[in-house]
Amino acid sequence: MTKTLADLYQGYIGCLNSQDWGNLENYVGTEVAYNGRMVGLDAYRQAREREFREIPDLHFDVRILVSDEKTVASRLEFEISPSGEFLGLPVNGKRVKFSENVFYEYEGGKIVRIWSVLDKAAIEAQLSRS
Amino acid sequence: MTKTLADLYQGYIGCLNSQDWGNLENYVGTEVAYNGRMVGLDAYRQAREREFREIPDLHFDVRILVSDEKTVASRLEFEISPSGEFLGLPVNGKRVKFSENVFYEYEGGKIVRIWSVLDKAAIEAQLSRS
Repeated sequence: MTKTLADLYQGYIGCLNSQDWGNLENYVGTEVAYNGRMVGLDAYRQAREREFREIPDLHFDVRILVSDEKTVASRLEFEISPSGEFLGLPVNGKRVKFSENVFYEYEGGKIVRIWSVLDKAAIEAQLSRS
Repeated sequence: MTKTLADLYQGYIGCLNSQDWGNLENYVGTEVAYNGRMVGLDAYRQAREREFREIPDLHFDVRILVSDEKTVASRLEFEISPSGEFLGLPVNGKRVKFSENVFYEYEGGKIVRIWSVLDKAAIEAQLSRS
């Protein structure tokens, strides 16, 4: 049975959450681009590995998932404690809650283009209250 | 023929771009909520009208659109010149380009819940270069 993009995407999220880096190439194309900039699989993997080092409690939680035959749209929720700066903000271990709304364009069953927006304003609001 | 949510959504965007406020109630429910907060149609309409006053060249440009039977996901691109502050940033008439990734949950053919993230960081980067 052919997997839907929603199935493939849930596999990708499971791969990230289990830090199963050897399997990332099964979900992400070698020529992956992020917000219009060519990144490539190796650099993309390194960036995700670095995030897990800098955010020990990092976990991707899919709250809304919409897909058609070539694109997945996902609203991810995070409740995490980045150890130092995050998005240029001095989070320094504080627990922050925010969302990411993100589109993933697929080709040949793999993610080739990612269009992400992170809710930096929500984090700023939480830091200003502390 | 039944309209798909994608059709309804394009109607909503056309309604905004033409500032056809009398028709907004055909696209947005009376109990509409924005990012988890109850707003209601009247206040939602007032907020959109205010945006068009404060941003004379406001235009909604749909770049990516994904939908299923109850949710629309859209990546909107803006290239606009807010006259004063925008998202708390001193834009003051400068032309800025940024995206909004947003989910719309429908009930009875109308938008009832909106989950939006605006790319504030992109605007900050453009202002810091000026």
